[in-house]
Amino acid sequence: MPTPNKTETSIINLLKTAKVKDKYLSGEEMSETLAVTRSAVWKHVSSLREAGYNITARPNKGYSLSEPLPFNAFEVSSKLKTSKIANNLLYFKELDSTNTKALQLAKEGATEGTTLIAETQSGGKGRLGKDWHSPPGVNIYTSIILRPKIAPQKAQSLTLMAAIAVAKTIEEFSPIKPSVKWPNDILVEGKKIAGILTEMSSETEQINHIALGIGINVNMKDQDFPNDICKTATSLAVLKGEKIDRAEVARALYSNVEKWYKVFLDTDLSSIIDTWLNYFTSKGKKICVSGTPPTEGICMGIDSDGALLIKNDDGTTKRVLSGEITSIY
Amino acid sequence: MPTPNKTETSIINLLKTAKVKDKYLSGEEMSETLAVTRSAVWKHVSSLREAGYNITARPNKGYSLSEPLPFNAFEVSSKLKTSKIANNLLYFKELDSTNTKALQLAKEGATEGTTLIAETQSGGKGRLGKDWHSPPGVNIYTSIILRPKIAPQKAQSLTLMAAIAVAKTIEEFSPIKPSVKWPNDILVEGKKIAGILTEMSSETEQINHIALGIGINVNMKDQDFPNDICKTATSLAVLKGEKIDRAEVARALYSNVEKWYKVFLDTDLSSIIDTWLNYFTSKGKKICVSGTPPTEGICMGIDSDGALLIKNDDGTTKRVLSGEITSIY
Repeated sequence: MPTPNKTETSIINLLKTAKVKDKYLSGEEMSETLAVTRSAVWKHVSSLREAGYNITARPNKGYSLSEPLPFNAFEVSSKLKTSKIANNLLYFKELDSTNTKALQLAKEGATEGTTLIAETQSGGKGRLGKDWHSPPGVNIYTSIILRPKIAPQKAQSLTLMAAIAVAKTIEEFSPIKPSVKWPNDILVEGKKIAGILTEMSSETEQINHIALGIGINVNMKDQDFPNDICKTATSLAVLKGEKIDRAEVARALYSNVEKWYKVFLDTDLSSIIDTWLNYFTSKGKKICVSGTPPTEGICMGIDSDGALLIKNDDGTTKRVLSGEITSIY
Repeated sequence: MPTPNKTETSIINLLKTAKVKDKYLSGEEMSETLAVTRSAVWKHVSSLREAGYNITARPNKGYSLSEPLPFNAFEVSSKLKTSKIANNLLYFKELDSTNTKALQLAKEGATEGTTLIAETQSGGKGRLGKDWHSPPGVNIYTSIILRPKIAPQKAQSLTLMAAIAVAKTIEEFSPIKPSVKWPNDILVEGKKIAGILTEMSSETEQINHIALGIGINVNMKDQDFPNDICKTATSLAVLKGEKIDRAEVARALYSNVEKWYKVFLDTDLSSIIDTWLNYFTSKGKKICVSGTPPTEGICMGIDSDGALLIKNDDGTTKRVLSGEITSIY
């Protein structure tokens, strides 16, 4: 659903105001207010219907708008309360990957906070080269361009920040508290509901730009998940038993990212680590992390670089920078 | 000077063989050996002259090739003994920046070891957004694509590896031993002779690809340096008092990178650190490193992540990941 143009956003705003008052709006009124012909009004209403707006026309009464509203940049932006994140919000019907596009735009100079949403991704990416299932109409696939003045060694802690922001967002809509799986998957009842992929362009000492990619399963139904992930994935709608407004989830997400990114930039990392650990349920448990060879031991938490700390049988603690927790005993 | 085509490389090889025997080569002989017309030979010889080869023609004797040979991919490749680094060598008359082009080619799938050389750079880059002065005809500006399966946290140690390879290369041509300035400038007698810029595309856990950019001042003369760096920069030719064959320096560089990259991949980092410290003259000295605020103290060396270790007056040791050593007391 493409983003409405200027006259169309005016029409939507007029219809929304009328809706609040439970009124119909005549084509004549709109044509006068917007200083366009009635036939132009009719054409714009047609485009808006094509763009997913439910606009009904009653003879002698006029037009009215009914829910649900479509998911597009205008709807997400209209009630957004952030000042930096998603201040420039770009909506795409389809992208290969929101992160790939974000990295390209960042390279071309897109400012910090520029945010991309795709209705669907043809090559959605997860961590470590995995796919991210990205069907249209149901979920959120978004990437945020960040330009923190930090060394790449600190990027893992930025991912922890993002995991907090996503977990807080899930918490606003889910009846059950989410947990984080190191380093950055968000689970509810052990099933994946959201994922984060942080990609960057950097020198060894300094990050040029980051694409913070976030995927949230919002309105996927159990039967919509592909076979290989149906037992390990869930969505907000599955948990809540009802359809969720994606624009509302996106707005909550951007607010949470803005809040926690500020914490990340302005304070030492202890509050990020502490908050992240609040959602981390593997601490103190025996775990196994993939790798060559895999690492097994008691999980002691994470350090300030976001590395997983695993205590071996011999009492030494190993820092793990990359991998997948494959078993929790 | 563009890279010669297939027939042209055959002509160069024939002329080089003749040169070794101190012989001239007639147009007729070449035309027979290469199975092309004599007028085709003449055309190719003209192109080769335009490409910088000194080919003289004597009536009744034929053609002969004399030194110096031009600097191009064919000349660098022809005596190259590496198996991975520069196995695919791309020569450009002018690039914005060899690193920028290398990152682009890597993104499009260029294999590990693919190497770029530019005769000149219009936007040559140094560390932390600084410029790298890149006039044509005198120096080496090269970028090597690497794809190590390491976390971005380890990229700084890759830069140390590169600093060793560059220092070893300088050592082969300079009468005076070079030193490294943390993190990765190469100096001789306190003047900069080479620099390294490592840029990468990565996830937080895994590097996708690296552009290892190296600039070496080979034949710059004192008067060629711009005013702002003439007192702080030098070149191999200045040190040796004679013109140096750039192709020979490039080959030495690629051999050294191949050797030390293998050490980097196959062993723990201790031999990299130890070798790097051999060239590091600030250890044990009081230094100041730029930053907000700057860090001052006794330099204790570097750790396995390539971070500079500085001991404060209170006895604590601080790890510095980024910055510039501004003073050595």
